[in-house]
Amino acid sequence: MTKKNAFYAQSGGVTSVINASACGVIETCRKNSDRIGTVYAGRNGIIGALCEELIDTARESDADISALKNTPSGAFGSCRFKLKSLEENRREYERLIEVFKAHDIGYFFYNGGGDSADTCYKVSQLSETMGFPVQAIHIPKTVDNDLPITDNCPGFGSVAKYIAVSALEASFDVSSMAKTSTKVFILEVMGRHAGWIAAAGGLIEDYDIPVLVLFPEVDFDHDKFIAAVQRKVETNGYCTIVVSEGARNADGTFLAEQGTRDAFGHAQLGGVAPVVANMVKDALGYKYHWAVADYLQRAARHIASASDLEQAYALGQAGVEMALAGKNAIMPTVERVSSNPYEWRIGSAELADVANVEKPMPSDFITDDGFGITARCKEYLYPLIQGEAYPEYDENGMPRYVVLKNELIDKKLEDFEL
Amino acid sequence: MTKKNAFYAQSGGVTSVINASACGVIETCRKNSDRIGTVYAGRNGIIGALCEELIDTARESDADISALKNTPSGAFGSCRFKLKSLEENRREYERLIEVFKAHDIGYFFYNGGGDSADTCYKVSQLSETMGFPVQAIHIPKTVDNDLPITDNCPGFGSVAKYIAVSALEASFDVSSMAKTSTKVFILEVMGRHAGWIAAAGGLIEDYDIPVLVLFPEVDFDHDKFIAAVQRKVETNGYCTIVVSEGARNADGTFLAEQGTRDAFGHAQLGGVAPVVANMVKDALGYKYHWAVADYLQRAARHIASASDLEQAYALGQAGVEMALAGKNAIMPTVERVSSNPYEWRIGSAELADVANVEKPMPSDFITDDGFGITARCKEYLYPLIQGEAYPEYDENGMPRYVVLKNELIDKKLEDFEL
Repeated sequence: MTKKNAFYAQSGGVTSVINASACGVIETCRKNSDRIGTVYAGRNGIIGALCEELIDTARESDADISALKNTPSGAFGSCRFKLKSLEENRREYERLIEVFKAHDIGYFFYNGGGDSADTCYKVSQLSETMGFPVQAIHIPKTVDNDLPITDNCPGFGSVAKYIAVSALEASFDVSSMAKTSTKVFILEVMGRHAGWIAAAGGLIEDYDIPVLVLFPEVDFDHDKFIAAVQRKVETNGYCTIVVSEGARNADGTFLAEQGTRDAFGHAQLGGVAPVVANMVKDALGYKYHWAVADYLQRAARHIASASDLEQAYALGQAGVEMALAGKNAIMPTVERVSSNPYEWRIGSAELADVANVEKPMPSDFITDDGFGITARCKEYLYPLIQGEAYPEYDENGMPRYVVLKNELIDKKLEDFEL
Repeated sequence: MTKKNAFYAQSGGVTSVINASACGVIETCRKNSDRIGTVYAGRNGIIGALCEELIDTARESDADISALKNTPSGAFGSCRFKLKSLEENRREYERLIEVFKAHDIGYFFYNGGGDSADTCYKVSQLSETMGFPVQAIHIPKTVDNDLPITDNCPGFGSVAKYIAVSALEASFDVSSMAKTSTKVFILEVMGRHAGWIAAAGGLIEDYDIPVLVLFPEVDFDHDKFIAAVQRKVETNGYCTIVVSEGARNADGTFLAEQGTRDAFGHAQLGGVAPVVANMVKDALGYKYHWAVADYLQRAARHIASASDLEQAYALGQAGVEMALAGKNAIMPTVERVSSNPYEWRIGSAELADVANVEKPMPSDFITDDGFGITARCKEYLYPLIQGEAYPEYDENGMPRYVVLKNELIDKKLEDFEL
């Protein structure tokens, strides 16, 4: 087997553990330096490959690479840039192969969600027909948890833990204040298409918190919702509402699109939390508070799930091992062996089966009333939030997150226009 | 010295460590059971005293009382209920003394901010003139950090840590995405009158994050702000903005009051973060994200500051010790001995000097341009966020927060109408 270089890139929205996958890839490549040469990372994701902006990870110390395990975000930069289809823009795929050829790259590790799985698959196919075979391995990552075949996706477990813990804490707060002040607390969470993250908020029901969850999967029914809030407040004194940013009306419009205008008549881009808050106030008059977690949730490395972190690293490692075993057009997966105690192992999926397939939340994960999660869903979720993988902190009381040198290697090709 | 019972109550907005002060009070009373009888806690704060709803803390196990150190919120319930002045409503103060007399309560520990210090002071004065002397001790608590004399207030350090850590993490996220997506991230934090909490967001400048802080203390200047955002983005590729909910225009109106209307023309109660986000979009066209931390910040026991937790407990303990030493109308304080290394000791303040005095942020804590914090401010803040006081977690991966039994004792008096 000839020694080839490797290329690694991060794609799409970043997570609190995607750098752990990067660490798994790079450390495993370093351990196999007899067979894999330099690992180049794409500066700002796949754009770095197209523009030949390749970061030489060999110039990063072992300590800094190891510190990636404890650092949220995408250390090499990510991007929202979807390659068009082969038919529409063959030029981009051919450019990728050209760059790989120029830098003797035989391994392509692409760390992302559904779109990047598709890109990864196309690269593997095209490289063969172009006579410069590249082994293309997809490392799964997405807080949306919507990749098929794998039991779950790295990044999701830590967001789920953050949301479950934060919703529990805020509910304790509201419970203290409810007698004379706030009775309803609304937490807006990510998930435009699927309610996986919102579902994690539903776990606090097990901790005696009166909670209602609004899923994108369930048509919003105003009167039913208001009645449910009233019932919770009358029974428990207060109510917590976890609402997915993608919660929508029966006609498919998002709740967040309420035609809100500022003083000048401009459309106001707000979140769904204040919309729900105003709904509750108008119908029931309860005092409320609302929060929008936004990036805080997916960046919250300080409360990352230990099982999530472990899997993020293991999938990066497994991707390299699969490449060394001659595999191509493949994605390492998490296979659940048992939920209690939690046991899992590494499996694999053909990219042909992954690309362009979205895994929805199973319908038996949502309770019949549409406002909660079932025992099956809880059995699925708890293992993913188990354990606390704390980062180190410095003497100031701030987490030690690493910033890499990210030095680019010299270009060998003409410039490429995106 | 005759043995008397004690009364403890929580007041106003709760924090992630106010229960640690409760724990300090109750454990120290238990250790001095030869001189202090039962500790009764007010159900929902001072309302519990007025309505004679007294929780018998003796029925709680040592383990549960100890677990209060790790539990956010107000375990006995708090309230937003300000007693009127003695002249306006002497009836309420007399009722308090009547309840204390009926239950042989000689110690009044009131855990709160400025308003409760004032109430505490009046109780001590009135009780003497009414011939039933009660030693009234105020235990400081407020995330607003605005009590005078004490170097800082329990509750603030943990919010400051949460905001500094969260702003750092989200900034790493934005930095990864900025090339093709989000360039500006806006985090709204608490602080209607003072910028203490927003100032904590300014600490991330030391971690090479391009950050702008909007304080209530600085008149908002739209053009200057937009120019500053543009400069940061052009220099660094992105910018983080930490905005206090109390940020205001030169005419004193809150930025959050933008006359926003929903589709039906109703005034929309939104936060300041979306207002700032729309401002940036309109002026510069940058893609943005925004978050509103709201209750999450003050409930975030999972990332509480160790120095904050230690002080919250120590001030509860000191309050009881001061009572045993015969003190009255007093508040234990934190006295800073040195910042580096951080050393502090317990001091005390006369309630006459605390009541109705608000401590503003010193003007030399804000940089001349109005968008950042000075070295003096950082020297003040870092010690308060030092150390991570993690709670325990259960096998599900959720924090072990205690819920007390909170059993009421039998009433002896007529009902009282609030």
